[in-house]
Amino acid sequence: MRWSEIGEEACSVARTVSVIGDRWTLLILRDGFLGIRRFDDFQARLGVTRHILADRLRKLVAAGVLAKTRYEDRPARYDYRLTPKGLALHPVLLALVHWGDTHMADGKGRPLVLRHKGCGCDFTPVTVCSRCAEPIAARDVRVRPGPGARRAV
Amino acid sequence: MRWSEIGEEACSVARTVSVIGDRWTLLILRDGFLGIRRFDDFQARLGVTRHILADRLRKLVAAGVLAKTRYEDRPARYDYRLTPKGLALHPVLLALVHWGDTHMADGKGRPLVLRHKGCGCDFTPVTVCSRCAEPIAARDVRVRPGPGARRAV
Repeated sequence: MRWSEIGEEACSVARTVSVIGDRWTLLILRDGFLGIRRFDDFQARLGVTRHILADRLRKLVAAGVLAKTRYEDRPARYDYRLTPKGLALHPVLLALVHWGDTHMADGKGRPLVLRHKGCGCDFTPVTVCSRCAEPIAARDVRVRPGPGARRAV
Repeated sequence: MRWSEIGEEACSVARTVSVIGDRWTLLILRDGFLGIRRFDDFQARLGVTRHILADRLRKLVAAGVLAKTRYEDRPARYDYRLTPKGLALHPVLLALVHWGDTHMADGKGRPLVLRHKGCGCDFTPVTVCSRCAEPIAARDVRVRPGPGARRAV
């Protein structure tokens, strides 16, 4: 399978990684959720080349994950803000952070602490069932082809 | 920043993507959660070259996400199974699936339907706060440097 075809596959993981399955892209999204919006700020934090950064930002805008917005007229300057579709990636980022905190730590503790404004407590993200609200582990899930399946899984 | 240094950065997203931030790797993990274990089965599903697949599997074994296990002695044959560290990536995969279902669908509905064995219902994953059990959205979270922070964020 060629990468250009991956987004066509009848699999939501494949479709998702066709948009965000790139290492720089995930770090750009991380910074977006931390409030970074400007090209030069992304570049300073990531240390990535301008060419790669421009490419990844362009693809995220094309995918509707970021919106390129003019924030100054003379000279014209643009920033990159998460759209609702981009903000909906928050659970992905939370899950990545939590796994890294738990399984890739260096013994010094969490680099970032997350506080839930709603209850005022530091928290870790928990993935639960939308129906019964119980935490979901891998062994608790059975999968079957859905209406959008195009091939056996 | 060079990719070889990314895993050293004091950020759990960066550490996580240093292990799984590769498109084939995410699809290998997807297939692992769907029960695929053998090299030839991964290759047949993914259509990836044997060289790339062997490289990604080797890295996942080195990272402790997959365990290479001998399942036949003559000839020696091995398979690749998710370790507890690998199984802990399940929330990441669920979040990727759900975003793809919601934002990358082709109008035909979900390719895969997830059923929670615990309650017997089809479900979608919801990310909630470990303290108050309320769903977490991006705007509900405040971050601050934790004990493992090595630089300002």
